[in-house]
Amino acid sequence: MEKLNALRKTLKSRKIDALLVTQPENRRYLSRYSATDSSISESSGVLLIPRSGIPFLLTDSRFELHAGSEAKDFEIMLYPKGLLPLLQKLLPRLGVRRLGFESHYMLHATARKLSAVTGKLGIESVPLVGLVEKMRVRKQQEEIGKIEKSVLLNEEVFQEVFATLREGQTEREVAMRIENTMLVKGAERPSFATIVAGGPNGAAPHAVPGSRPLMRGEPIIIDMGLILDGYCSDMTRTVVLGTPDQKTVDLFRLVRKAQLAATARIKAGVTGKEADRAAREVITEAGLGDKFGHGLGHGVGLAIHEAPSLNRRNGKKLQTGMIVTIEPGVYLPGWGGIRLENMGVVEENGCRVLNRDTTFLDL
Amino acid sequence: MEKLNALRKTLKSRKIDALLVTQPENRRYLSRYSATDSSISESSGVLLIPRSGIPFLLTDSRFELHAGSEAKDFEIMLYPKGLLPLLQKLLPRLGVRRLGFESHYMLHATARKLSAVTGKLGIESVPLVGLVEKMRVRKQQEEIGKIEKSVLLNEEVFQEVFATLREGQTEREVAMRIENTMLVKGAERPSFATIVAGGPNGAAPHAVPGSRPLMRGEPIIIDMGLILDGYCSDMTRTVVLGTPDQKTVDLFRLVRKAQLAATARIKAGVTGKEADRAAREVITEAGLGDKFGHGLGHGVGLAIHEAPSLNRRNGKKLQTGMIVTIEPGVYLPGWGGIRLENMGVVEENGCRVLNRDTTFLDL
Repeated sequence: MEKLNALRKTLKSRKIDALLVTQPENRRYLSRYSATDSSISESSGVLLIPRSGIPFLLTDSRFELHAGSEAKDFEIMLYPKGLLPLLQKLLPRLGVRRLGFESHYMLHATARKLSAVTGKLGIESVPLVGLVEKMRVRKQQEEIGKIEKSVLLNEEVFQEVFATLREGQTEREVAMRIENTMLVKGAERPSFATIVAGGPNGAAPHAVPGSRPLMRGEPIIIDMGLILDGYCSDMTRTVVLGTPDQKTVDLFRLVRKAQLAATARIKAGVTGKEADRAAREVITEAGLGDKFGHGLGHGVGLAIHEAPSLNRRNGKKLQTGMIVTIEPGVYLPGWGGIRLENMGVVEENGCRVLNRDTTFLDL
Repeated sequence: MEKLNALRKTLKSRKIDALLVTQPENRRYLSRYSATDSSISESSGVLLIPRSGIPFLLTDSRFELHAGSEAKDFEIMLYPKGLLPLLQKLLPRLGVRRLGFESHYMLHATARKLSAVTGKLGIESVPLVGLVEKMRVRKQQEEIGKIEKSVLLNEEVFQEVFATLREGQTEREVAMRIENTMLVKGAERPSFATIVAGGPNGAAPHAVPGSRPLMRGEPIIIDMGLILDGYCSDMTRTVVLGTPDQKTVDLFRLVRKAQLAATARIKAGVTGKEADRAAREVITEAGLGDKFGHGLGHGVGLAIHEAPSLNRRNGKKLQTGMIVTIEPGVYLPGWGGIRLENMGVVEENGCRVLNRDTTFLDL
């Protein structure tokens, strides 16, 4: 209820009588209802949070039991004819005059229909952006604990699959084994599509695992994450079967040095830009600045990508309780890439790294 | 280019100078670009289709190679700073005065930003719904061939896993093996989350596979589909380990009878409602009408759920080249469910069923 009360204060200050929550992670954050949506047009339910009184979880009969067992502070209401007809009845009954909706997670066509319905009732529909996301950025202790468990399970999966990694296995085969092992070990699902990219394929930061077999001596990027109890993990290791050559070792050490520099820089009060710069300077000094084409990291929580961004543009200060990835990389077209990624919690005086795995980190 | 020309005729009739295509299946349909979007806010590219001249695929550098290798009729343009800054330059250069966008697949917040940008340029942004979807409803021969291959591969997966089905395996374990086998056999991915629901769990039409072990004698619903070369398949079989009891056999036969009645009824000119009714009457006559709580079927193509709907509400006539599922079911709370699902092509004089598998269909 603490989260709901905080949200209600914001609603009050914006003169919103009730908020419609359509974004799936926001829905889970506020209600504990864990259902996922297969797409934005196939919702498994929305929250309606009036400024006072019992909040509602609106869904259809397929999800009734699931919703009731998890969203215990919410009244479950079903919409056999769809959301809008239910809102048409419910909003006037609740005395709503201004209804907020999540403009960043409602289709334009749906928002038009919504405001046609509310308009007829004399209710104003008010587009809002990121209200609940803002609450989610700084994690509570309980959340940090869950994220840590997610990180550790992800490492367990990595280590199990890494132990069986062999020359000749295809990228796709390894990626599938990773995702399978996640599920067997109790993850809800992968937090994003697992990347396994060997040799030259590693030169694209978002490579899709293909039929290329893994070869000895080349760097193999493995970027993987899972969802446990709602919370995401995200880790990248670059590994080598057999003995890496000197160029590979040098690049490993460079990327690791950049990662350590950024980790040492991160604490409350430092901006996303400054954190990024700490890593980027190391790589730039080695003459490879243009080979590090993405930002240093991103926030992680119920969503795999959330605020804050650690990149060249984010001038906002980090705050305690934020959880970020620290993932510098270098990518050489035709040769391959090295990326190393850990997750850390922003604290008052530094960054507490959640990862324990050090495979190929300290060559 | 045939599809593009057809679309351009529609644009002309609506006085739209260019259409922005954000919906991923529409994008693939028009361009052959096969990338997927992990969510509506993480797009791997959008099409900009002017009424004449070369069409564009706008994307970011991560997808440049992929896009170029597939969307051969398109000019690939990158948006290093995001889509809107690129449109700001490109639209005036193309002389666009009225820009159509897909209102049913653009976030409300994005549409607001888009119209702020176009507004400053004196360009009108026009919300459109379902223009390309309408084109996709009737499949061309080439598409029907691809869907047939998808159906047959899906059956191959089913048969392989069915042969190893044993008492004591959990629903989740079986679902994972099915999805794994799909990938091993070359599917792009499952077309939806596989359902394996044994005994009472089968009473919910959208059960999520859990830790319940399969037991002898009870009906086990397996609902599965895959994507091959872009096109979806969708099949449900209900199977029994050991010997089904008389009640199970009777219900199987009833559902199969309903399925055959609907299959016999479907042809061009029959409405979605009439097709649904053909199956529903059979089940209603047996006194179980209220146990068949969902519609008879849905269209399938690049998307797993698309037009037309076969249900109690759709009064529109089916047309040749549409592909639909035919999936009646009965669901008895506490006992379980039986659902049987095939896919068929609507033809001039009937419905050509694409499935060959008859496991437990004709008990």
